[in-house]
Amino acid sequence: MKMNEIKQKVLAFRDEREWKQYHNEKDLAISISLEANELLENFQWKTSEEAIAVSKQNIKEEMADILIYLVQLADKLEIDLEEEVLNKLVKNAIKYPVNRSEEKVK
Amino acid sequence: MKMNEIKQKVLAFRDEREWKQYHNEKDLAISISLEANELLENFQWKTSEEAIAVSKQNIKEEMADILIYLVQLADKLEIDLEEEVLNKLVKNAIKYPVNRSEEKVK
Amino acid sequence: MKMNEIKQKVLAFRDEREWKQYHNEKDLAISISLEANELLENFQWKTSEEAIAVSKQNIKEEMADILIYLVQLADKLEIDLEEEVLNKLVKNAIKYPVNRSEEKVK
Amino acid sequence: MKMNEIKQKVLAFRDEREWKQYHNEKDLAISISLEANELLENFQWKTSEEAIAVSKQNIKEEMADILIYLVQLADKLEIDLEEEVLNKLVKNAIKYPVNRSEEKVK
Repeated sequence: MKMNEIKQKVLAFRDEREWKQYHNEKDLAISISLEANELLENFQWKTSEEAIAVSKQNIKEEMADILIYLVQLADKLEIDLEEEVLNKLVKNAIKYPVNRSEEKVK
Repeated sequence: MKMNEIKQKVLAFRDEREWKQYHNEKDLAISISLEANELLENFQWKTSEEAIAVSKQNIKEEMADILIYLVQLADKLEIDLEEEVLNKLVKNAIKYPVNRSEEKVK
Repeated sequence: MKMNEIKQKVLAFRDEREWKQYHNEKDLAISISLEANELLENFQWKTSEEAIAVSKQNIKEEMADILIYLVQLADKLEIDLEEEVLNKLVKNAIKYPVNRSEEKVK
Repeated sequence: MKMNEIKQKVLAFRDEREWKQYHNEKDLAISISLEANELLENFQWKTSEEAIAVSKQNIKEEMADILIYLVQLADKLEIDLEEEVLNKLVKNAIKYPVNRSEEKVK
């Protein structure tokens, strides 16, 4: 439910500002890299603990920005982002099988 | 609903492989930048249209990988990612007000 | 000659501020990605021509920042960056041979 | 001397393959971010020491790739990269003054 709400609000935000015309997929991919690095900047010269102690609010906002751009790129590509995650998890499970050897021994 | 399913499956995938112990927040932020650049690589030397024509499947998978890492980072930080997006949209709306000047003229 | 001058000045700059103690290689690699994305930000939503028209000064400065971090990382790793480029060009030449087929036809 | 040799060889490599026509500045900036993340990937889930122990050769090659792209972008922009670094160091020295208070006390 909340993910649908997010999509509606993200796209409404974009459309109220008439930004869709600028939103080609290449620049959206660039934007995701830029936001990912703004997230990462919080951890520069710091341990995870130090970064969270001083910048948790900014970390949360940069994570939100990444998802906002992902939603917009998914809309442009007419794909279902959650469905893609479920598909990718199936693929990853084949690539990285769970090691059940220890359980068998028990 | 599907977002909750995604969270459960992403975290189950991680925990079956006992990977949480390696998942410090700094390396998760690094991972998001790496995946964002794997997404971006599809657009290198290409227009959006060319990239989509030859690499749509990979584009979708890299987008999925980014969301998978976002979900894992949100879990470590104990934050609600969708809630953060809704908060960020409110903040962005103040930063980028809708220009209603044209409507007023009409 | 100028490259040696650059190395001396970059490392003197770092050492006058006693920053070497913070300069682990992982954070230097993070810093290079951050600066590369600050460079890239100049091109977001723009063509190359538009970006250069409005931001050439910043583009130059971000390029300088990337090289400054490369020099510092090379110093920490005790490698000769120019020598590595010459080695890499040899390797790349094998990977991407010059297509001489047209010349042969002539 | 070696930096001039690098420039000549990098640009000759490009021109023998007739790649200059594809080398718009925006895609060169994208390429630098991609290479920076290939460098960073060596440090994912690792300490600096672990990364250097297992991947020093790849680290060196990715650093070389970044400088190769910087040289090509500088050529397209018709700027002198080393000169830009010297200018940037002057600017950084103003931004980050050396704290000489301790020396004064002595």
